[in-house]
Amino acid sequence: MVVVMKFGGTSVGDGKKIRKVAEIVRDRKKDDKVVVVVSAMSEVTNALIDISQQALDVRDLEKISDFISFIKDKHYSAIEDAIKDENIKKHVKKIIESRIEELEKVLIGVAYLGELTKRSKDYILSFGERLSAPILAGALNDLGEKSIALEGGEAGIITDNNFGNARVVKLKVKEMLTPLIERDIIPVVTGFIGLSEDGYITTLGRGGSDYSAALIGYGLDASIIEIWTDVSGVYTADPKLVPNARRIPKLSYIEAMELAYFGAKVLHPRTIEPAMEKHIPILVKNTFKPEDEGTLITNNIEYSDRVVKAITTIKDVALINIFGAGMVGVSGTAARIFKALEDVNVILISQGSSETNISIVVSKEDADRAVKSLKNEFGVFYKKSFLNNSVIRGVDVDKDVSVVSVVGAGMRGAKGIAGKIFTTVAESGANIKMIAQGSSEVNISFVIDKKDLINCVRKLHEKFIEAQ
Amino acid sequence: MVVVMKFGGTSVGDGKKIRKVAEIVRDRKKDDKVVVVVSAMSEVTNALIDISQQALDVRDLEKISDFISFIKDKHYSAIEDAIKDENIKKHVKKIIESRIEELEKVLIGVAYLGELTKRSKDYILSFGERLSAPILAGALNDLGEKSIALEGGEAGIITDNNFGNARVVKLKVKEMLTPLIERDIIPVVTGFIGLSEDGYITTLGRGGSDYSAALIGYGLDASIIEIWTDVSGVYTADPKLVPNARRIPKLSYIEAMELAYFGAKVLHPRTIEPAMEKHIPILVKNTFKPEDEGTLITNNIEYSDRVVKAITTIKDVALINIFGAGMVGVSGTAARIFKALEDVNVILISQGSSETNISIVVSKEDADRAVKSLKNEFGVFYKKSFLNNSVIRGVDVDKDVSVVSVVGAGMRGAKGIAGKIFTTVAESGANIKMIAQGSSEVNISFVIDKKDLINCVRKLHEKFIEAQ
Amino acid sequence: MVVVMKFGGTSVGDGKKIRKVAEIVRDRKKDDKVVVVVSAMSEVTNALIDISQQALDVRDLEKISDFISFIKDKHYSAIEDAIKDENIKKHVKKIIESRIEELEKVLIGVAYLGELTKRSKDYILSFGERLSAPILAGALNDLGEKSIALEGGEAGIITDNNFGNARVVKLKVKEMLTPLIERDIIPVVTGFIGLSEDGYITTLGRGGSDYSAALIGYGLDASIIEIWTDVSGVYTADPKLVPNARRIPKLSYIEAMELAYFGAKVLHPRTIEPAMEKHIPILVKNTFKPEDEGTLITNNIEYSDRVVKAITTIKDVALINIFGAGMVGVSGTAARIFKALEDVNVILISQGSSETNISIVVSKEDADRAVKSLKNEFGVFYKKSFLNNSVIRGVDVDKDVSVVSVVGAGMRGAKGIAGKIFTTVAESGANIKMIAQGSSEVNISFVIDKKDLINCVRKLHEKFIEAQ
Amino acid sequence: MVVVMKFGGTSVGDGKKIRKVAEIVRDRKKDDKVVVVVSAMSEVTNALIDISQQALDVRDLEKISDFISFIKDKHYSAIEDAIKDENIKKHVKKIIESRIEELEKVLIGVAYLGELTKRSKDYILSFGERLSAPILAGALNDLGEKSIALEGGEAGIITDNNFGNARVVKLKVKEMLTPLIERDIIPVVTGFIGLSEDGYITTLGRGGSDYSAALIGYGLDASIIEIWTDVSGVYTADPKLVPNARRIPKLSYIEAMELAYFGAKVLHPRTIEPAMEKHIPILVKNTFKPEDEGTLITNNIEYSDRVVKAITTIKDVALINIFGAGMVGVSGTAARIFKALEDVNVILISQGSSETNISIVVSKEDADRAVKSLKNEFGVFYKKSFLNNSVIRGVDVDKDVSVVSVVGAGMRGAKGIAGKIFTTVAESGANIKMIAQGSSEVNISFVIDKKDLINCVRKLHEKFIEAQ
Repeated sequence: MVVVMKFGGTSVGDGKKIRKVAEIVRDRKKDDKVVVVVSAMSEVTNALIDISQQALDVRDLEKISDFISFIKDKHYSAIEDAIKDENIKKHVKKIIESRIEELEKVLIGVAYLGELTKRSKDYILSFGERLSAPILAGALNDLGEKSIALEGGEAGIITDNNFGNARVVKLKVKEMLTPLIERDIIPVVTGFIGLSEDGYITTLGRGGSDYSAALIGYGLDASIIEIWTDVSGVYTADPKLVPNARRIPKLSYIEAMELAYFGAKVLHPRTIEPAMEKHIPILVKNTFKPEDEGTLITNNIEYSDRVVKAITTIKDVALINIFGAGMVGVSGTAARIFKALEDVNVILISQGSSETNISIVVSKEDADRAVKSLKNEFGVFYKKSFLNNSVIRGVDVDKDVSVVSVVGAGMRGAKGIAGKIFTTVAESGANIKMIAQGSSEVNISFVIDKKDLINCVRKLHEKFIEAQ
Repeated sequence: MVVVMKFGGTSVGDGKKIRKVAEIVRDRKKDDKVVVVVSAMSEVTNALIDISQQALDVRDLEKISDFISFIKDKHYSAIEDAIKDENIKKHVKKIIESRIEELEKVLIGVAYLGELTKRSKDYILSFGERLSAPILAGALNDLGEKSIALEGGEAGIITDNNFGNARVVKLKVKEMLTPLIERDIIPVVTGFIGLSEDGYITTLGRGGSDYSAALIGYGLDASIIEIWTDVSGVYTADPKLVPNARRIPKLSYIEAMELAYFGAKVLHPRTIEPAMEKHIPILVKNTFKPEDEGTLITNNIEYSDRVVKAITTIKDVALINIFGAGMVGVSGTAARIFKALEDVNVILISQGSSETNISIVVSKEDADRAVKSLKNEFGVFYKKSFLNNSVIRGVDVDKDVSVVSVVGAGMRGAKGIAGKIFTTVAESGANIKMIAQGSSEVNISFVIDKKDLINCVRKLHEKFIEAQ
Repeated sequence: MVVVMKFGGTSVGDGKKIRKVAEIVRDRKKDDKVVVVVSAMSEVTNALIDISQQALDVRDLEKISDFISFIKDKHYSAIEDAIKDENIKKHVKKIIESRIEELEKVLIGVAYLGELTKRSKDYILSFGERLSAPILAGALNDLGEKSIALEGGEAGIITDNNFGNARVVKLKVKEMLTPLIERDIIPVVTGFIGLSEDGYITTLGRGGSDYSAALIGYGLDASIIEIWTDVSGVYTADPKLVPNARRIPKLSYIEAMELAYFGAKVLHPRTIEPAMEKHIPILVKNTFKPEDEGTLITNNIEYSDRVVKAITTIKDVALINIFGAGMVGVSGTAARIFKALEDVNVILISQGSSETNISIVVSKEDADRAVKSLKNEFGVFYKKSFLNNSVIRGVDVDKDVSVVSVVGAGMRGAKGIAGKIFTTVAESGANIKMIAQGSSEVNISFVIDKKDLINCVRKLHEKFIEAQ
Repeated sequence: MVVVMKFGGTSVGDGKKIRKVAEIVRDRKKDDKVVVVVSAMSEVTNALIDISQQALDVRDLEKISDFISFIKDKHYSAIEDAIKDENIKKHVKKIIESRIEELEKVLIGVAYLGELTKRSKDYILSFGERLSAPILAGALNDLGEKSIALEGGEAGIITDNNFGNARVVKLKVKEMLTPLIERDIIPVVTGFIGLSEDGYITTLGRGGSDYSAALIGYGLDASIIEIWTDVSGVYTADPKLVPNARRIPKLSYIEAMELAYFGAKVLHPRTIEPAMEKHIPILVKNTFKPEDEGTLITNNIEYSDRVVKAITTIKDVALINIFGAGMVGVSGTAARIFKALEDVNVILISQGSSETNISIVVSKEDADRAVKSLKNEFGVFYKKSFLNNSVIRGVDVDKDVSVVSVVGAGMRGAKGIAGKIFTTVAESGANIKMIAQGSSEVNISFVIDKKDLINCVRKLHEKFIEAQ
């Protein structure tokens, strides 16, 4: 059986870490066939985002050459630490050198044209993974393994042309990787990136590297998908907010999906579905403490006394309240609202029973754009009489709020849990501004003032996690 | 100042009651100028809906002639009891006779054509009010008042051509009614109906008579809008479910709006907005116990110990859960869902934090249609792989559920209220399947199994209303 | 082999004529299996159109009862003359009586509702054929033939719900008619009408009866489709305009299609395509001179000295000229123009080489509507500066013009024909205002002043038809 | 009064010619205020189009550096020949040098990114004029005139962002140029290019430099707009095809517009409208024979014996015939056809009277794309039965055809002209495949086989131009 091992950016943060990763892979390889998926070295993706914007804005070639020096240093010294054999070093260096040259040209191109298309942006972002993968493959070679670095498209991830958030349209993973695996070669696949049918490099959007791992696991019918990161699994709460947060040993797919959205950013919700479809377990592991057991995500729901598995948070959100009695019975208003908000990531939705208002939560930075879109769609609504045919009378925005979610499959059908949760919230001193619980019942989410966040989460954790 | 008095169907249920109403109006008239808005006599509107459908379906002229006899009897005997003066009687009878002839022809027309357009349906429905108003005007004449019956259009309610749910596009209420009022004539306006700019009779949709009253009050800058009905005001709960339910003396507009949606059907949410815009108080009164104080709805929020004002319910609803991880980050999914549900009245919406599902509540009879529309939009989704590009993986429906709403402006900012509510729900033995609380915080709504409804509502009423 | 015989309205203009038709059918039946398609008796369809509008407009029941008397008289006396046997008479009378009752009810329905939907209109129009067919079937019975009247739907013509101009979606002609034909029964099918899949009667639009015949011929793989009318075939010109016009013995399908649009209204262009697809000859015959040879339409092009087969005319048209240099290079302008004219029947289109104007010809009564639609789409264009972004600067309309078409398959590739035609037109004193010749080359059409029409057509006929 | 003088690419083909142009301008300046509009030096625009595509396709930096050398040489040697004063030379050289550097960077940018957006393409194309204008301004300075080079945006031509074919949305010509003119400075404005409101350089599409001149003339209420080119005016036919072609001394605006489309490419049809709106005469002059009178275009129609003013041709076109009886009466078919052809430049349209086919002429290179678009819209139509609901049965294409147009305002109302024309065409041996004459009657266009083109045009010229 095949194991897919995905290593995140911090796991390949420098050359020594890359060598460490190579050792972990080598050890795993003793028992199983292995495919590796790798992220960009830490900081690199963000630096690429910044420089692509700077190249455009200032047209300052010096910034580009500074950036290229930084990237060169980072990857050259990584090679130095990750690989010992001089020939392998030289070979990898040549690849990296040529790729960095390519990157420099693209950045200069953007600077010269003063224009950054989505296609070019994806191309620039792809360099993060396209620089880290050859180094890891080199380190594996250095450890005596046969290994080869592949881009997403070379590994069979074929997407549409929706740059920045491409959708997979075809999976040729099996055809592309099986011949390598059978010849005992370890493919090191760039996470995050695919290839469109027109031959352009695309990126898979937020959490794309996890998703790449899941796609490859799916395509190969892997026995397990391992997500190696810098924490020892999924935690019961964000340890930065709740010192007593602890690792969760087992999660069901559905819990993981709900948690994933915040979940110490351990893995992305999109990762779950391919695994779930083929019942492939996902194991979250810590690259720096490989002895830690991590968190295992499977089909099984763990029945225990503890109905609440975790408490997650999104700190900076905005609560937007859209109101107006004209909405009653005007079919299509909700459709118009969400059409207007098409490009906004809506985190929570709640419509109260009187149909006279719809509340939504969006990330703080999207708030102004969301309100503007609503105004474009419905007209300037304030001070208008109900006669003026606008179905919406106004929009209120509160930007100092946070979202808290209480997650656990055991909550389904557990009477009294909502009461206990909201009583605890009240005891913490927080005022609930909006509630949304979907019918999966695996999750209750609510909005409180940001200033009350820490208290509230700690109190909930104490009561529902620690006390159990 | 002008008073608008609206009398519902039960208030004009027979001739004696109509005379009673006329007396109430006459008494009120001593102090103020009065405009009356009247509904159809009780049962008449439903009978009109039925016969319009039967005329179409069976093409059975006998049913129509039976119906016409019933309508004739009902209104003739009402004239007999409501009016004493023979001349007035004769005059009113002639009007009623000619209208019923008109109605009969229309019904025969439908039967002959085997076709019922929305325009014809509105026309048929309009007869309810167009038959009751002349009798009430006659009764007022009989009591020595000058009074005249007017159709909605004659009173200045001008709408678009959206039959069945027409939108007001122009209000000429002041121009049309002031000349009458000034000459001391009491206009008796048909509720529920308007006139389109093309000259067709339209209806204003659910709760249309209350809305007519609000529109007229708005147009005349009335000092008060009185809604006369068969209960003594808004109650803390449906007395049929909760024997201890009591009258609420005062409500804010916003509470009333939230309550209105269920609220013993006392008044329709659309009624509130015109009144609220001009700060016109609304008084809900009982025609049969005019001495009862009723419920007064104003701008003021009553601050008392009792944060919860009322508990309302919708018994027969369906909970639809739309799920699929493909929805994460796919902008526009919510817009597509609500576009597909454009013709469905969505009562509650809740989207949990992971964005992987959206739950909605619709009335039970809309459930199958809603699911069908979703399937049309998203394709047959079950058993499809995540690769097949459908953003939705499935839809679940639960038809044996009810909605409970806890309403009270005092809940805003009241810490702990949600906790107490849900603890009480749990104690009642009910399991919460979905929660939605909008940011107005005046209302928490949730879904429970229908079998748990009575227990749950009584328990909540005990704890939050009776005990306070 | 099966022969389809279609008889037009004048052919069944009264009872004696119907009997004549029955005799023609009987004689034909000796050699072949026969299916008959029949139009409404002459005048009846127009009378139905009128009364449907009058019923709506005046709501005058007397007009309806006058109309019903007229219809009754017409059909009863037709029965009297067409059928001798008293039993058959009685039987047919009963059918006719019950249908006329049905018709009366529908008309009263329209009057009572003051509303005429497209569905009801189609239903009303269908009575023309639904009254004539049973009489012809009765006459055939009277002559000793087995015959049965069928509605379009019963004969297997299944359409969509596009009332007034329904499109055939399914043909079950074979299944429906073969069992009858095999039992030696002559089906008399109502022309013009079909049945929608939802079970409503539909009409097939202009020329629908010919089309019905073609559909049935197609469905049965008939050996010939005979169109029996009141002229002895297709003529070289409208005999009312050109006294020397003569019958054309043979035409190709393509010539017939081009001619059909005017062509003494002998048959409708839509008739050709089904016949052409299965190479079924169409024979146009004169019911009143059955000995005349008529015009035979087949796949073969008759090569003779005479390249021009016929000269046709549309007398009352309007020439609309849309101009504006802004149209140059603005892709999509033509699309916008024809989108705006979607509901207008555009007879001719011509765009000159400079792209700065597009000329169209529409029927005179459509002209104002067409101009209005163009103004809606492009804004009020007159007096605007070129700067105002309107791609169209203006629209001119000339309503006193006619269209002349010169048709003949031999024109294809015949050098000099256009020159001769336009020289002749000039000699006739007419000024050419617009020319359109499609690449089929079978047809040259042009627009001249209406006052010059007769001279021009006669001159062309002399030169190209008579002189050859 | 102000004179606008526009000089085309050949007029500024090298340094000596630029000096010649400067002298012409200086002489003209003695009597009037002058604004100059200038095209790119000949060959430059095409070279820019080629290199922009090559930069993209081959990513071959050598090609770019070859191109830059070519551009440098061309403009440096032009400076050498056009300007004598060393200081002016140096100054202009500096401007040109810096612009060429800018151009080189943009081309490298395109090469590096492998991507050419419409915005970048417009930017690249703008360099042609942005390099020629400073040289001409320098030459004027050298001759002792005060002159300054301006880009289109600096001269007040403000457009939308529709790159490649921008539409003027605002004209600030008066505000921008008057202050210069009043101080006796000659503005040398780059033709062809504008500036979008967002600050991007745009191009005005085909014939853009003429259009720039017309816009500036319009904005300044110029007394005349002079189009200086390499021919002595508009000719009666293309001299390459017809040796006897002669100059036309006077044309009306409308004739010019019709001719402009081919008309020895002397000026673009869009040029006419601004001039026509303000009755500004346009004078076409020959830079190399300034003594020639040229062609004057005004509002007046010259009535002479000669009704035909010119015969124009488009050699390589395709005739597309769209046919199918299903089109009869199916409203919206034309709209669908032209919607499908939205991106295709349709030169001629003709719809014959039977409505069963629409013929269009497009340029040869657009033919395949046009047919593909039609197939996308209407489905694969061949071999389908008429039952399959496709309104179109097929599409025929003939690619070996040419368009001939006969133009003259005197043709309007001139009886017999069409006959004479087509008789002459026949005598020339050509077969007419399609005719389109718009109702302006100023123009008859028709399609013939390409092999017959020369004979036909010469014959027409002989008969209608030379013989008169």
